[in-house]
Amino acid sequence: MKNGAHGLIETLVKSGVDVCFANPGTSEMQLVQAIDQVPGMRPILALFEGVVTGAADGYARLARKPACTLLHLGPGLANGVANLHNARKALSPVVNVVGDHAAHHLRYDAPLTADVEGIARPVSHWVRSATSPADLARLGAEAVAVAGGVPGKVATLIAPADSAWTDLPADFEAPPKIASEPLSPASSTRIEHAAKALKHARNPVLLLGGDALNGEGLRHAGRIAAALPVRLHTETFNRRLERGAGRVPVGIVPYFGERALELLDGADLLVLLGAKRPVAFFAYPNKPSVLVPDGCEVVPVAGPADDVVAALAALADALGAPATPKIFQPALKIPAVTGPLDSQLAARVIARCIPEGAIVVDEAITGSLYAQQASIGSPAHDWLQLMGGSIGNGLPLAVGAAVACPDRKVICLEGDGSAMYTVQALWTMARERLDVINVIYANRSYAILNIEFERVGVGAPGPRALSMLDMSGPSLQWTEIARGMGVNSARVETAETFESILRGMLRERGPHLIELVLPAKP
Amino acid sequence: MKNGAHGLIETLVKSGVDVCFANPGTSEMQLVQAIDQVPGMRPILALFEGVVTGAADGYARLARKPACTLLHLGPGLANGVANLHNARKALSPVVNVVGDHAAHHLRYDAPLTADVEGIARPVSHWVRSATSPADLARLGAEAVAVAGGVPGKVATLIAPADSAWTDLPADFEAPPKIASEPLSPASSTRIEHAAKALKHARNPVLLLGGDALNGEGLRHAGRIAAALPVRLHTETFNRRLERGAGRVPVGIVPYFGERALELLDGADLLVLLGAKRPVAFFAYPNKPSVLVPDGCEVVPVAGPADDVVAALAALADALGAPATPKIFQPALKIPAVTGPLDSQLAARVIARCIPEGAIVVDEAITGSLYAQQASIGSPAHDWLQLMGGSIGNGLPLAVGAAVACPDRKVICLEGDGSAMYTVQALWTMARERLDVINVIYANRSYAILNIEFERVGVGAPGPRALSMLDMSGPSLQWTEIARGMGVNSARVETAETFESILRGMLRERGPHLIELVLPAKP
Repeated sequence: MKNGAHGLIETLVKSGVDVCFANPGTSEMQLVQAIDQVPGMRPILALFEGVVTGAADGYARLARKPACTLLHLGPGLANGVANLHNARKALSPVVNVVGDHAAHHLRYDAPLTADVEGIARPVSHWVRSATSPADLARLGAEAVAVAGGVPGKVATLIAPADSAWTDLPADFEAPPKIASEPLSPASSTRIEHAAKALKHARNPVLLLGGDALNGEGLRHAGRIAAALPVRLHTETFNRRLERGAGRVPVGIVPYFGERALELLDGADLLVLLGAKRPVAFFAYPNKPSVLVPDGCEVVPVAGPADDVVAALAALADALGAPATPKIFQPALKIPAVTGPLDSQLAARVIARCIPEGAIVVDEAITGSLYAQQASIGSPAHDWLQLMGGSIGNGLPLAVGAAVACPDRKVICLEGDGSAMYTVQALWTMARERLDVINVIYANRSYAILNIEFERVGVGAPGPRALSMLDMSGPSLQWTEIARGMGVNSARVETAETFESILRGMLRERGPHLIELVLPAKP
Repeated sequence: MKNGAHGLIETLVKSGVDVCFANPGTSEMQLVQAIDQVPGMRPILALFEGVVTGAADGYARLARKPACTLLHLGPGLANGVANLHNARKALSPVVNVVGDHAAHHLRYDAPLTADVEGIARPVSHWVRSATSPADLARLGAEAVAVAGGVPGKVATLIAPADSAWTDLPADFEAPPKIASEPLSPASSTRIEHAAKALKHARNPVLLLGGDALNGEGLRHAGRIAAALPVRLHTETFNRRLERGAGRVPVGIVPYFGERALELLDGADLLVLLGAKRPVAFFAYPNKPSVLVPDGCEVVPVAGPADDVVAALAALADALGAPATPKIFQPALKIPAVTGPLDSQLAARVIARCIPEGAIVVDEAITGSLYAQQASIGSPAHDWLQLMGGSIGNGLPLAVGAAVACPDRKVICLEGDGSAMYTVQALWTMARERLDVINVIYANRSYAILNIEFERVGVGAPGPRALSMLDMSGPSLQWTEIARGMGVNSARVETAETFESILRGMLRERGPHLIELVLPAKP
């Protein structure tokens, strides 16, 4: 006899969801049993829920479809909220399955009773709670449809234990996959207006985001750049940027507002294609929030959730652009480097070693900038970033990316501060033998905060302030943390050792970790 | 010139809050500066927010006043929500200070923009957002008053960056401490009714919770037991239970419902004093939610948030009880044990070693039961437990308890599964040189889930199910994880080694970790 849990898992599999990142508890045991018994769903255990939700984000960015998560009531969901925030900002489709007490048990306010819907709502586009076993399956199909592909949404389905354990009607059949709403196309009026503005602009910029940075989107952007003199830029942070040798090159708007305004200085037209108007990451006293130079017209064509590929194609056609781009990034050979490591030398080693088809996950914060710059001419690769600003996204993203693309190398560039939030991801990498090389930038500091402390205008930090920005005393020993979770590791202090160890690890399969011993100041 | 951040920190200090568990970011830099410049606030950095909020819970249970937390916008708060859920269920007073973007910056939907209030509400009794620097200070005083002492509440104060960085009026003075609402006293009618019922009952039980288990509360409970034949019991999980040799002994209602009903079988009266009617932790098919035997009258006198000490005193007086209890727990000498460790042998070693005045934090789940039973006659100590069921509370509780009571030994009994959720706490223990001995029950399994899997009635788990319950492949190496975070560690496999290592660690100060290698089945 099938119960509601069987019905839900059958439905998810029928709708194309076949990976479940999980950290279940007692109220999810029927769902665990159903995953065991229904063919087609691969469970992947994580030892903390932030790993579960961040992995679902990384998986979606590569697989272009949702994974499901399996989370233990309100508090288990809460542990996953920060990375659901990041997934939401990345427009990654995610289907959360969250257990809850049986409906009749809620009134007794047992210890784990919590407002599951209230916890879900701030990070979910859609929240529903099942009222029967058949309803659970029906809502499962709806959740997958809502989540959609890339760009997508976060759908949270609450599964009360009794909906999971109660038998389904004898004639139950898993509902069929429901088609997702199509993406909004750009209006022809907007495209005409943008085409006209581009023809008349002296110094136009296309600001690209989302799928404008992948495959067909990037090709059409390159066509436009072949038709008229226009700069191609991306936002500071990108869900997945295809770059490297042979790809249409795009410049990246810098993180610090002053630098962003310098880059855009002189631009008289900014056309938004899958991107939003550039704004400061944080507010600062006496600094602007909007990073658009005075006198620059902003023309939105497609937003991040719209069909930007179609918009780019239509715009290229309207401009009479050629069928293919003209400018491609040439391969750049970086000379070998030696000496005590800093972020710049580390960047060059990474740029020298990135293999064709690699997926680079970038959450090294102050270290990322150099790595990004140095690798523009490395063999073609994808660059994945933190989209919601909540650090602790990188290692889980790497888990998800490696699950989605088992035949590609994943290189995860991580700040030591960022890595700690979801360090449990290392264990899942070891458990699943994921092909990930984690590069930890061990500067023993929230280095970005030392910079920001000065930027917010409060002078130099005193000792009590420093104690909140600095991570030394004791210094984290990343090689031991990694080994403790079953991941092979090495600590390196020079560029030449880094390169030889990294090359060795790239020749092997399975997870590795390299701790880069870096000075505290970037 | 003072700004809003200075005003808030001055106000918190003036209101008696002098410890800040912190994980700040850019939007909190003015608050970091103010902690640096205003005397009287001790900042304690944690590398994950679940450690911050769990430490505030542990601190409050011992200090009987709130610490404040410092958290980075919505996602930083979200990472602390699970342990705020636990703190809320423990009725621990906590004052959260959560940074947010400057008000004028919110409309731009920068990456970290989130619904901070929405994230706070499910775990907060009170949520406010400041609208000016003076308002920030005023709300700070109000938050401390709302949080109160023990039992207390969770108050969340959102501090937009501009409220923190804007100058205060020249005549600003930090507002004075506001008195908290007094606890509700028990009605004399209820006390009379309970006294009468107790005199007539054949087999009465007092179910004690909260402050009924500490100091005066426990004394009055012991007086009642001296006046008439009544069993004293506590709920399964307790905020802080004073126990051991020389203390009034109380029995604990077991976790599994069947066992709880067995214990209470035959009782005809259950008087609730700081406790709620016993209910099952989870719902199960065909098992009851309420764990009160048929025919047993339930008489609530004081709830967990009421003045249970006054209620106990009044009830003891109404019963004409003597001034002091008659029955005290005798010291029990446990014989030395040897051989390969299991949870039962480990329990005896712990019971033999608990020093006078120790604080035992108990989150060893399947291992806890034996440790609790074995230590009833150990030297007097406090026993702290997970109140909200969201595992990952133990190590942070130990941090907070050690900060509140630097002269007492803290022994933290942790399941390996539970420990992983907030493993970053080890680093804070090392940073602050906290006197905590962490005992990790390394059975490499969510052992409780293996039991629950059978209890929910779905038979034996198959391989895919097992992969979600089992934490081997790879096994966590706790000694390496601890060393990686600066904590001295040892792995033990026999009872005699455990005892000799534990005794050695108890002679030293500072944090330690012992990994108990245990069989997977409890």
